Amino acid sequence: MLKGFAKAAIDPATARNLRVEIEEFHAEYSAALDEGRIAEWPSFFTDDAVYRITGRENADADLPVGLVYCEGAGMLRDRALAIAKTEMFAPRYLLHCVSNIRVLAQDGEGDVAAQANYLVLQTLVDEKTTIHQAGHYFDRFVRREGRLLLRERHCIYDSLLIDNSLVMPV
Amino acid sequence: MLKGFAKAAIDPATARNLRVEIEEFHAEYSAALDEGRIAEWPSFFTDDAVYRITGRENADADLPVGLVYCEGAGMLRDRALAIAKTEMFAPRYLLHCVSNIRVLAQDGEGDVAAQANYLVLQTLVDEKTTIHQAGHYFDRFVRREGRLLLRERHCIYDSLLIDNSLVMPV
Amino acid sequence: MLKGFAKAAIDPATARNLRVEIEEFHAEYSAALDEGRIAEWPSFFTDDAVYRITGRENADADLPVGLVYCEGAGMLRDRALAIAKTEMFAPRYLLHCVSNIRVLAQDGEGDVAAQANYLVLQTLVDEKTTIHQAGHYFDRFVRREGRLLLRERHCIYDSLLIDNSLVMPV
Repeated sequence: MLKGFAKAAIDPATARNLRVEIEEFHAEYSAALDEGRIAEWPSFFTDDAVYRITGRENADADLPVGLVYCEGAGMLRDRALAIAKTEMFAPRYLLHCVSNIRVLAQDGEGDVAAQANYLVLQTLVDEKTTIHQAGHYFDRFVRREGRLLLRERHCIYDSLLIDNSLVMPV
Repeated sequence: MLKGFAKAAIDPATARNLRVEIEEFHAEYSAALDEGRIAEWPSFFTDDAVYRITGRENADADLPVGLVYCEGAGMLRDRALAIAKTEMFAPRYLLHCVSNIRVLAQDGEGDVAAQANYLVLQTLVDEKTTIHQAGHYFDRFVRREGRLLLRERHCIYDSLLIDNSLVMPV
Repeated sequence: MLKGFAKAAIDPATARNLRVEIEEFHAEYSAALDEGRIAEWPSFFTDDAVYRITGRENADADLPVGLVYCEGAGMLRDRALAIAKTEMFAPRYLLHCVSNIRVLAQDGEGDVAAQANYLVLQTLVDEKTTIHQAGHYFDRFVRREGRLLLRERHCIYDSLLIDNSLVMPV
């Protein structure tokens, strides 16, 4: 469990409706990444969002260091652009599979903390499909114009040995 | 994204109900294949259904060629029978895991276009469980006597190197 | 399919509500195991619960022998304690991914039979994330004080070669 993402009492019906919405969010987010629509990626976040990919060891020790750290829409867009414009990594197919969604808490302003499992499969040319990265999302969602957006996404991976060409968001 | 499977505006409540039904469909379909009930496989399709397994490279280039192509109930039943009656491949266990369901569109006649991720795990005797095939389903469902049936199923796999004993439907 | 877990007629709306609840159960159960909260594990079961991990070959042949067999809360707590107190196995991260939930039947007393796919990923220090065990849960749930509990959990794994340090519950 990530600090700040404890499970709190929440009305079961509210939690269920939120879970359905969050499941839809994950499916749209994953599809954008799987289809290479990287320019759309920042649109899943608020303007002041924090995005981080870090290992479970670091997260457990409450260390902020990670493989990727973005703060704010500008950094997210920079990253998306960098990926779209560079081709310094081999072409690959990615498949994001999300399961085990848990709605953890809802605060007074309606922000929703939630968790999910992710499994990113990678296929490189002439290679078998492999497990690229597996871990947990720890998310904080807010509602803007009826739509859920990420104010925080912490991707905490179990995988200790990660392909060093990790440039793609998760 | 597969041609003909663009995301269109759809009433959120309708989309949610459909997603639940489609999730049930996937669970039943997968269970039939995992349990080796291959003779039941054609019963998930309409009489005029199209079933196809093809690589993402071909799909992206809009090329119809695939590893498997069936058109109509007769071809589906032929294929099911061929698999049931031949034993030219080593015994194996398959596990179909479906996630990331997206309801894409509903047309005027009620046909529903949807997408999902699939991950087929394979276990051969005396071998570890491996990723056999991973990819996306692109489906067109119709309702017959209250039940969803597939009029089209396109299995678009990421996996470029596929075990050449691919005889089983996905 | 496991003996005693046949699919029976069940009201669709009831089945859907149960499936949502069971999905929540799996997410909580998996999170407890993934986070190493092993002492909580027995709290997901009734006092007279049966817990079993066995291979699909044995299950198909209706043989009861398995890798793990617990009957009753005492044996479950013993096992949890044994795992918590021993460190005779290398540290590892586990990730339980559950999908393809099927509500199979509900009996006159309200007990619910259900099935799901599980995929346990394992990460050992300095190794890549691998598929540790993949298979099906066959569960019998009862409701106690508004909450679902397992009266039976049969973990039937496809994986024939299992890491012989299998001490953790699934």
